[in-house]
Amino acid sequence: MIETPYLLFLGDAPDMLAAKVAIGIRDWRPDNALGQIRLPGCGADLGLTEMTLEQGLEAGAKTLVIGVANRGGVISDAWKEVLVKALELGYDIASGLHNLLRDEGELVAAAQMHGRTLHDVRVPTVAYPIATGVPRSGKRCLAVGTDCSVGKMYTAMAMDAEMQKRGMKSTFRATGQTGILITGSGVPLDAVIADFMAGAVEYLTPDNDDDHWDFIEGQGSLFHVSYSGVTMALVHGGQPDALILCHEPTRDHMRGLPGFKLPTLEALRDVALQLAKVSNPDVVVSGISINTQHMNDEDAAAYCAKVEEEMGLPTVDPYRHGAERLVDALAAI
Amino acid sequence: MIETPYLLFLGDAPDMLAAKVAIGIRDWRPDNALGQIRLPGCGADLGLTEMTLEQGLEAGAKTLVIGVANRGGVISDAWKEVLVKALELGYDIASGLHNLLRDEGELVAAAQMHGRTLHDVRVPTVAYPIATGVPRSGKRCLAVGTDCSVGKMYTAMAMDAEMQKRGMKSTFRATGQTGILITGSGVPLDAVIADFMAGAVEYLTPDNDDDHWDFIEGQGSLFHVSYSGVTMALVHGGQPDALILCHEPTRDHMRGLPGFKLPTLEALRDVALQLAKVSNPDVVVSGISINTQHMNDEDAAAYCAKVEEEMGLPTVDPYRHGAERLVDALAAI
Repeated sequence: MIETPYLLFLGDAPDMLAAKVAIGIRDWRPDNALGQIRLPGCGADLGLTEMTLEQGLEAGAKTLVIGVANRGGVISDAWKEVLVKALELGYDIASGLHNLLRDEGELVAAAQMHGRTLHDVRVPTVAYPIATGVPRSGKRCLAVGTDCSVGKMYTAMAMDAEMQKRGMKSTFRATGQTGILITGSGVPLDAVIADFMAGAVEYLTPDNDDDHWDFIEGQGSLFHVSYSGVTMALVHGGQPDALILCHEPTRDHMRGLPGFKLPTLEALRDVALQLAKVSNPDVVVSGISINTQHMNDEDAAAYCAKVEEEMGLPTVDPYRHGAERLVDALAAI
Repeated sequence: MIETPYLLFLGDAPDMLAAKVAIGIRDWRPDNALGQIRLPGCGADLGLTEMTLEQGLEAGAKTLVIGVANRGGVISDAWKEVLVKALELGYDIASGLHNLLRDEGELVAAAQMHGRTLHDVRVPTVAYPIATGVPRSGKRCLAVGTDCSVGKMYTAMAMDAEMQKRGMKSTFRATGQTGILITGSGVPLDAVIADFMAGAVEYLTPDNDDDHWDFIEGQGSLFHVSYSGVTMALVHGGQPDALILCHEPTRDHMRGLPGFKLPTLEALRDVALQLAKVSNPDVVVSGISINTQHMNDEDAAAYCAKVEEEMGLPTVDPYRHGAERLVDALAAI
């Protein structure tokens, strides 16, 4: 559990592309994002209040979150100077970088001296149990993709936000470092030991009110040979009541796998549903989320209409069209 | 890679049930099993030559293998006395125990002092790559089960042995601690970090001669909600040319999951084949292995005949009937 709210550290990020984590926090948990702090030469700007470390503290910030990717895979001296000072002043620090904060002697020493916590959210900190498959109360929705990086996290976030707006009970459950930093908690599933993956997902989505929905962040794809085992653990450990199919229509091949074509939405529906029924016989596919970022408005609308006609399921790009219809379908379950 | 041959340490095992690893080595790699060494009160006896540590060394043993489960989850002082002496004399030690050798200060000190190696085969020692899915030469056979512990390792071992007998090219590829200790190498797949599972299987089964078969040790089941992610990584990372379906017909429910019925062999065939085709479109289901240990001869034969009729695939219990027909089917691919 990372303490909120945050001051967002943008470092010397060359551009907005490097600031994915910070953008996610600003967009999805604006209350967590009190302000931004930047180094000279920073090319990213979230449009948040520019703050010094001291000003952040005065505004109530508890944790300095590294909201950008670092250059060259090292934590530079210029970064370290700010991070050490933050620990001295009383901040915790949270990071999803591959380089771990805990591998930096200066940061470890400063955190110990000042009684602060370093959160490396890529590293599991819990001894997760073996999954039991025992039915849980409450409802769970899992986004599954024809490929990696097709908008599964965005879809779950958007559906959770729509439910909140309607006053329904829901929680976004993060399974990757970006989601964990945005919400302050979760399971870094791709770093969990194989035998405990499904148990980690059960741990993440416990019994809940009967009318509460967990939106579980998807990972990988059942059709992506590098990561399908992680996806499988989500399908079985997540015990979903509803599946949302996610797809990006303009992609030539599976991400990182030039020899592999994407499956059809029909194939994804059939395989995912069959597997999900093992842990929850009542699971349904309730909607389809299309990532239309590489299409114009007209093409995007036409594509969604065509898929909706063919598959007989509400089909939208939640970024472009909103998540209302996906949530309507869940509300009817 | 564990140096062979072995002296098998049986400790104070109460009975033969506790000596599963040692029995596996004796039965499948008799050339690796030079002799046995036992403590007072040991109730297990493999029928191998009784040896002191010194006699084992004279006979050529390189590694002392802990061939039994330990009592109460601790490595006792009586065990440690033998293990430390073995290291002093020049043995490496290999173990699949949950308690790690490397966590025992005395053993670590003795190994360092005498330049010997402690092999904890439950712990991965390789930084496995991310799976690429690139087609590999050679052929691979994977046993998949309706449940855990239905005879997948035995089936793969028996088919490998039958190919060896025929002078065909084959290798058993271990993915669990027992298999690794038996053969001296492998990947402890259930202990690998989620993102690298399929890559570890690719690493384990590299390019090979076109007429060479890898028999990959299966793990878990696609229908076992606790471990299905591990099985999925084997199906995709293993890139199998042939699948063997494994089943134990007398079981009431999935192992460790009282609320879950076993799937039918038809359901396993359909799901496994569909998923395996993602990484190898030419994969076939080539045979069925039935674990008939809880049936009499007549019932076992009748059950296999019935399944063979229904499924149209060679169906045997390789322990009872031999693996010849399963290998015949592969030889025809």
